[in-house]
Amino acid sequence: MFTINIDSSSSVPMYEQIYEYIKNEIKSGQLPPKAKLPSTRSLAIHMQVSRNTIDMAYAQLLSEGYIESIPKSGYYVSMVSELTHIAVKKTTVIPVKSKKEPAYQYDFSPYAIDINSFPYNIWRKLSNTFMNNNNNDIFLLGNNQGDEGLRAAIGRYLHESRGVNCTTEQIIIGAGADYLLQLLTQILQYSSTNININNNSVTDENVHSNKECVNIFSGNIAMENPTYMQAYKIFKTMHYEVTPIPLDSSGISMDHLSKIDSNIVYVTPSHQYPLGIVMPIKRRLELLQWANSSPDRYIIEDDHDSEFRYKGKPIPSLQGIDSSSKVIYLGTFSRAIAPAIRIGYMVLPEKLLEIYKKNFNFYSSTVSRVDQNIMKSFIEGGYFERHLNKTRKIYKNKHDLLIQNLKIFGDAIRIEGENAGLYLIIRFNTQLTEKEIIDLAAKGSIKLYGLNEHYFPDTESENPTLSPLPPTILLGYANVPEEDIKKGIEKLYCILRAKLGNTK
Amino acid sequence: MFTINIDSSSSVPMYEQIYEYIKNEIKSGQLPPKAKLPSTRSLAIHMQVSRNTIDMAYAQLLSEGYIESIPKSGYYVSMVSELTHIAVKKTTVIPVKSKKEPAYQYDFSPYAIDINSFPYNIWRKLSNTFMNNNNNDIFLLGNNQGDEGLRAAIGRYLHESRGVNCTTEQIIIGAGADYLLQLLTQILQYSSTNININNNSVTDENVHSNKECVNIFSGNIAMENPTYMQAYKIFKTMHYEVTPIPLDSSGISMDHLSKIDSNIVYVTPSHQYPLGIVMPIKRRLELLQWANSSPDRYIIEDDHDSEFRYKGKPIPSLQGIDSSSKVIYLGTFSRAIAPAIRIGYMVLPEKLLEIYKKNFNFYSSTVSRVDQNIMKSFIEGGYFERHLNKTRKIYKNKHDLLIQNLKIFGDAIRIEGENAGLYLIIRFNTQLTEKEIIDLAAKGSIKLYGLNEHYFPDTESENPTLSPLPPTILLGYANVPEEDIKKGIEKLYCILRAKLGNTK
Repeated sequence: MFTINIDSSSSVPMYEQIYEYIKNEIKSGQLPPKAKLPSTRSLAIHMQVSRNTIDMAYAQLLSEGYIESIPKSGYYVSMVSELTHIAVKKTTVIPVKSKKEPAYQYDFSPYAIDINSFPYNIWRKLSNTFMNNNNNDIFLLGNNQGDEGLRAAIGRYLHESRGVNCTTEQIIIGAGADYLLQLLTQILQYSSTNININNNSVTDENVHSNKECVNIFSGNIAMENPTYMQAYKIFKTMHYEVTPIPLDSSGISMDHLSKIDSNIVYVTPSHQYPLGIVMPIKRRLELLQWANSSPDRYIIEDDHDSEFRYKGKPIPSLQGIDSSSKVIYLGTFSRAIAPAIRIGYMVLPEKLLEIYKKNFNFYSSTVSRVDQNIMKSFIEGGYFERHLNKTRKIYKNKHDLLIQNLKIFGDAIRIEGENAGLYLIIRFNTQLTEKEIIDLAAKGSIKLYGLNEHYFPDTESENPTLSPLPPTILLGYANVPEEDIKKGIEKLYCILRAKLGNTK
Repeated sequence: MFTINIDSSSSVPMYEQIYEYIKNEIKSGQLPPKAKLPSTRSLAIHMQVSRNTIDMAYAQLLSEGYIESIPKSGYYVSMVSELTHIAVKKTTVIPVKSKKEPAYQYDFSPYAIDINSFPYNIWRKLSNTFMNNNNNDIFLLGNNQGDEGLRAAIGRYLHESRGVNCTTEQIIIGAGADYLLQLLTQILQYSSTNININNNSVTDENVHSNKECVNIFSGNIAMENPTYMQAYKIFKTMHYEVTPIPLDSSGISMDHLSKIDSNIVYVTPSHQYPLGIVMPIKRRLELLQWANSSPDRYIIEDDHDSEFRYKGKPIPSLQGIDSSSKVIYLGTFSRAIAPAIRIGYMVLPEKLLEIYKKNFNFYSSTVSRVDQNIMKSFIEGGYFERHLNKTRKIYKNKHDLLIQNLKIFGDAIRIEGENAGLYLIIRFNTQLTEKEIIDLAAKGSIKLYGLNEHYFPDTESENPTLSPLPPTILLGYANVPEEDIKKGIEKLYCILRAKLGNTK
């Protein structure tokens, strides 16, 4: 009979201690396969515990298959030949310290937002509104496309502020632009190939031993160069070829676009990312005409930061003047509210919407319904508009302050893209390379972000309008405190002064 | 000179009204290309508005490219030949009423949870904790893999309650199982093909005119049959072949699995979905041995509802006894808390983690950081454990009540899978088909869910242990009020009584 040391002071229930003991005896081979276990009654008496305790221990061992019950005979250790090889890893969960980047005194990140302006009070109030027992329904899985109420609110907002024309039905809510782009590439892939998902049989002769070749006619996506490299990476990862198209002063070059074999083009017409070019109406119409010339052609309009324009009103979206259902409109609340709020939206043209509904609508929504409800009330209650007005003022002040302080550089820099967005484009007149500028600044604890990383690999110098490309910095100000803008720029000037041409 | 009707009582700024007027004149052709506009000064005098207003209107027209400025000459309408074709859609955003399913009096959904038990107060309290100005950091984009704090908390929880062995580093947080499975298929695809994402050049000769053939050796995933069809759909959509493997009393049939050309198998070992089979230790070891026999083989363990077991302690995970890094462990909080909380987790073996980090870690996290912080505190504060204990009791009561009330059916039904999960499997002894039972119940306002829809298309009768398959219902009780369990089952009995065999 077993000698099991029961720790009666332990928080582990007695039955579990007995179960663990016997399991280990079996694993270690002390109790070999086919060995008979004592009856529950006799073990209970032997251990002076209730029979119920032994029953529970045996039941657990039975459930997990360590022992078997033979009717009218008793319990036996299972025939598990491999059991002796069990060598459980003894990994413990140790939090891994992530490598922290060195902290900079001044960080002119073009990707940042002013985090101090997050609307805590309203958000908390709206959140609390939904956190009560009368809202049980919002804890069930909602519409896979996103809750209708939020989609309607976003639809109205986009119509009023961006001139987007769509029905609630055309809007898909997702956890950020990256997720929506992954979904979109699947829809476009399907659109261009008409692969029957339930019957993608393999006919290729080059089938490997245990690998099958699925021919995916994934097509080619044309992108502005420079561009939003995150989208580039997603397209590549989703098996697309990506072709860089140079820019001229109106944005994407139609001459280049029309010469390549591409049915999809990804553009940022209201505020080219990263160069800030506003695509004029003529180029927009040419682009729509290009899309109209083939039924498979589509334009992805990423409207990434059009909320922030400091001169006049926002540039209307390309989608709004598209009368042929050729534009896929994409946006998020990352800039307008905070990137941590993972809510994005995509407006699909009817044909792609049909493909989505038929083949991809089974994917569960990726946004918490509590968050969807908060966002809906935030828009409908007018809080979003007020928040945008407030942050637009904050950014305008910082933007003006930055431009004013940059005057110290005189003709050694040229400022571009100053009417919109959350950063300025600074072209340096210097023999230094972009990397040298960034490295020098870093030594002075100033973090700068270069333009080069937004170009396709090995194409930095191909851009006809930018040849030779002057070293260029995307100087972000959104999250730099006002007092640091002056100090940071003065410090940067001190660091670079000696190496600049044409200084005052 | 223009005659522009300015509505001074309108909320639309004056400059915007002027801009709209001129834009429409250009679009309609009233102002033809090359036409000269009045100078800002003369128009201001003519309209008796400030010159600044006209400046702003012209600036907006310039920004959008409708007019051009020729230095020392003035403003001219742009040469936009296609402008006259602009026919903006006049779509208005009309909320589309979604088709509602008829409301049932009794809904025995196996997918539901008890929504009344959502921990409102704690959730609200934790949420408010983070909604203050001292937490600015959590409104920035966090770690793409998920915040380290939450990953550490989940790692500890999984280790303690499920026997999962992993480091914080191996855990990836995502917005639900569907998203994580999409990500996983990308990782596995990469793993099996070693496509170089940055260089997937096309060499196939069968390149179509403007479509390119990318050979993706997507491989084959074996799945239990019946299974979680949502996962099946995701694999198919992500270009995998999926092979159904029949079950025996220990779960997935190793005989069948070993005969097919598949390197990946998706299983639910702790509580087979939907049949409720607990995979015994012997079969688990055989499955691990199968995976060990080739470096490309992996097991996806979907631990979908193992929190809810009413007899003994939870069955330890398969991942916990895997000493060769072959098991990908997947879970969510959808059952344990609520499906609307879109938080799932995936534990990757080292080799796949490396592929993820190198190639897919650029995808932004899909879970709001506020939600991540709430979840972390919910686990670490001990609230999650208490919530599980509370809901386990609620479900146990409903479960016992359901079994008790089902006695009315006598031998006309056989109950299976009664130790765990949130539904019972009811096998009917009757000449009725599954569909007929569901339809009859529906006429009496009782919503039932059949087993058939969990089988691969056209394989319902292939399962060797289930031939001929008796009509089977997955009878869920999680969200049925206790008083409705008795009433609903009695009503169901009245409806079916005449058609059942072997009734009392």
